[in-house]
Amino acid sequence: MNNLDIKKELVKMLGQDKVLTNDLDLMYYSYDSSFLTKLQPVTPTAVVLPASTAEVQKVVRFAYEHNINIIPRGAGTGETGGCIAVEGGIVFDLSRWREIVEIDVNNMQVVVRPGVIHADLNDELAKYNMFFPPDPGSSKMCTIGGMVANNASGLRAVKYWTTEPYVLGLEVVTPTGDVIITGGQQARCIKNVSGLNLTKLMVGSEGVLGIITQIRLRCFPRPKARGIAMAVFDHLDDAPATVLEVYQAGVLPSGIEILDASAIKAVNDFKPDIKLPDAEAILLFEVDGNPPGVEYDGQVIKEVAERRARQVEWSTDKKRMAELWEGRSITAAAAARVRADGSRIFAGEDISVPISKVAEALRAIRALGDKYGIQVVNYGHIGDGNVHCAPVINPENPEEVEKVEKLVDEIHRLAIDMNGSTTGEHGVGVARRGYAVLEHGPAVEYMKKVKAAFDPKGIMNPGKLF
Amino acid sequence: MNNLDIKKELVKMLGQDKVLTNDLDLMYYSYDSSFLTKLQPVTPTAVVLPASTAEVQKVVRFAYEHNINIIPRGAGTGETGGCIAVEGGIVFDLSRWREIVEIDVNNMQVVVRPGVIHADLNDELAKYNMFFPPDPGSSKMCTIGGMVANNASGLRAVKYWTTEPYVLGLEVVTPTGDVIITGGQQARCIKNVSGLNLTKLMVGSEGVLGIITQIRLRCFPRPKARGIAMAVFDHLDDAPATVLEVYQAGVLPSGIEILDASAIKAVNDFKPDIKLPDAEAILLFEVDGNPPGVEYDGQVIKEVAERRARQVEWSTDKKRMAELWEGRSITAAAAARVRADGSRIFAGEDISVPISKVAEALRAIRALGDKYGIQVVNYGHIGDGNVHCAPVINPENPEEVEKVEKLVDEIHRLAIDMNGSTTGEHGVGVARRGYAVLEHGPAVEYMKKVKAAFDPKGIMNPGKLF
Repeated sequence: MNNLDIKKELVKMLGQDKVLTNDLDLMYYSYDSSFLTKLQPVTPTAVVLPASTAEVQKVVRFAYEHNINIIPRGAGTGETGGCIAVEGGIVFDLSRWREIVEIDVNNMQVVVRPGVIHADLNDELAKYNMFFPPDPGSSKMCTIGGMVANNASGLRAVKYWTTEPYVLGLEVVTPTGDVIITGGQQARCIKNVSGLNLTKLMVGSEGVLGIITQIRLRCFPRPKARGIAMAVFDHLDDAPATVLEVYQAGVLPSGIEILDASAIKAVNDFKPDIKLPDAEAILLFEVDGNPPGVEYDGQVIKEVAERRARQVEWSTDKKRMAELWEGRSITAAAAARVRADGSRIFAGEDISVPISKVAEALRAIRALGDKYGIQVVNYGHIGDGNVHCAPVINPENPEEVEKVEKLVDEIHRLAIDMNGSTTGEHGVGVARRGYAVLEHGPAVEYMKKVKAAFDPKGIMNPGKLF
Repeated sequence: MNNLDIKKELVKMLGQDKVLTNDLDLMYYSYDSSFLTKLQPVTPTAVVLPASTAEVQKVVRFAYEHNINIIPRGAGTGETGGCIAVEGGIVFDLSRWREIVEIDVNNMQVVVRPGVIHADLNDELAKYNMFFPPDPGSSKMCTIGGMVANNASGLRAVKYWTTEPYVLGLEVVTPTGDVIITGGQQARCIKNVSGLNLTKLMVGSEGVLGIITQIRLRCFPRPKARGIAMAVFDHLDDAPATVLEVYQAGVLPSGIEILDASAIKAVNDFKPDIKLPDAEAILLFEVDGNPPGVEYDGQVIKEVAERRARQVEWSTDKKRMAELWEGRSITAAAAARVRADGSRIFAGEDISVPISKVAEALRAIRALGDKYGIQVVNYGHIGDGNVHCAPVINPENPEEVEKVEKLVDEIHRLAIDMNGSTTGEHGVGVARRGYAVLEHGPAVEYMKKVKAAFDPKGIMNPGKLF
């Protein structure tokens, strides 16, 4: 079927207002937030904006019959090209399907459609004293569907894990057009170990197994109190050592973030008023719970961190906490400004290493930056070893682009060498599919078998993962 | 290949001391802890006791070549017949393979072989101030391999989830004899979203996809303090209502247990000294964390529970906590003694329902017990809706057996009708495979596709799950 006929059929099925076919519209869908798609944007054949399971199913069945690729998309905040039609096909933009189907307070659950925005969901849940703990940096933009598809996490994974455990059930339109409900077809329970765990197989599958059309999430009671500790270190190695000593002292903070010297400098250059102490590393601990419990944990953290840190501050004062955290919250923006003629790119930005190797990894990344003459700003979730590296280049300069691609490749290989992963939370997409065998060895063959079992024609988000 | 030749070949491969073939030995392997296997014990063709991945692989390849069924087994504490060779074959007894490969304190992880006992593992981890939070009732007997295969949990799933999130990576011998490592073939990181999530697909797969030969688990810092609250209710509905009010008050206890009138009576009859208050329901809350945080949560629980309860007690005193908890800890034993000529059977013992429907479910189960003239003792993990029903019968009486089978069937259907599941933590095995389609609908076809992708000859623990 030619592209014109495809577009006509889609309009026939969904109506003109749910199908995008003009070039300008399609161009928008050739990007996500990755550097990769800035270099190699690929426009899809068409975009559909379905707002019901029946609509999704109708288009999937049509695509299956005619061997047309299917690419699900949330808000496009991904960093890996995961939602791009790299081999052509129909993009399913689910970001407008923002229905909170039910806040089931009596069962500590919420049922949503895929396009609900993370921050909006937590705003709604807050009214019922509940929350959905994972907190990606893109909270105000990213969709719950995208979070599930990528198993997103963020600052609070140390204590609260990733999106994965919260997902109790999913409605999925499979590549052959079946609608299945995982986790029990009419279930509203929290625990269910019946059958193979298709729910968790779908979580983080990056759209290669089907389109997620409904999500049932467990929610937690909202903690009443919060505190922030900042610790300043003259020696990089003292930062991960302190993290481990805090764990040894019996404290599990909700988040532990690091800014290394490169990030501290970037922040101070960007906003000199913040006056972050000049140091090799700054750790930020976030603790949550009830008021005396938070205060106790904060004092333990302070005591433990003071063994190695030059300076430690602990606060539960709202204003002071915001000040302490400000350096971390503007790091990404600061990284984007370290060069007047450059910008921060999202590539090699999400490696994960064992906690004990974070300092070694940061030093190695610095050395690689020196080797290629590229500035790299390092920060991230040290509490679980998930490091964010921000290379800063002039993307208009082909020589720098060539260099940064080599740098990023070395960062990915470094992570695997250090018993880590190329991606702690952002996913594989197109950007990291080349490392699948290096990272997983023979297990990749089994991933492919599972993929083929769901998607015999290979039309579901092809060119991703492996 | 005939059975005699199979046995000879196994001895040739592993040596006489790792192969069991005599009838008395095999009879032992015709049971787990389920009622089902007491009624229908099936002996395997042979039992092997492998103690290395190479040995497992060798026997699996032999079995694959000759179309012989493979049945993995841990300690045999399961309640569903999941480790029984219901269609014949070789049982792999992994319970003697008890090696703790590495306690990786610096990365908050532990690597174990499948036969390590849960309680032993936590004893070892305690030396490093770490723990593996899930806590099945069978802690002193069950193996980590069995816990992973069944996604076991227990009393603390309210706050600490099930086994699932802690499993960071697995070594698996697949039914075709491949060895794969999930979660990154050399990974020792905590976060990894690269590739399809084979790790979590394996968790809870009950041995139908492969044999788990090594397990990498995340550990948590050991909490410093603990407290127990007991609340006594004259009205059953007030128990789940109080659970929800505690959540609404911002408290997430580590566990919340219920004993209904049947369990209270059973406990008092069994050990009159305990003097549990005569009531419609008793709730037990366990809180853990740091000392002032625990005390604060305990006071909140007390205050909230006093709105509906006749009597509430909160304690952090070690001796008093043990006394408050004693009723719960002996419930299973007490249930076994409610009739001089009867015993408690494990069947229909593990349903899960939405928290809001626990009271309704318990009343319905009581009514079903009355209908069939069978005593049922009810208790369980009300905090997540996972209810344990203990029917008490004389298993030598065929009439009672027939009745209890009908009762159990109705309990399973009731759970599904109430938007629950036939199994919250014990699994499907043989006992509940008949409900797969009722519970999961079209998703079962996708479970079967995944199963076939791993196990093209259908030799891996056949007759289970669906």
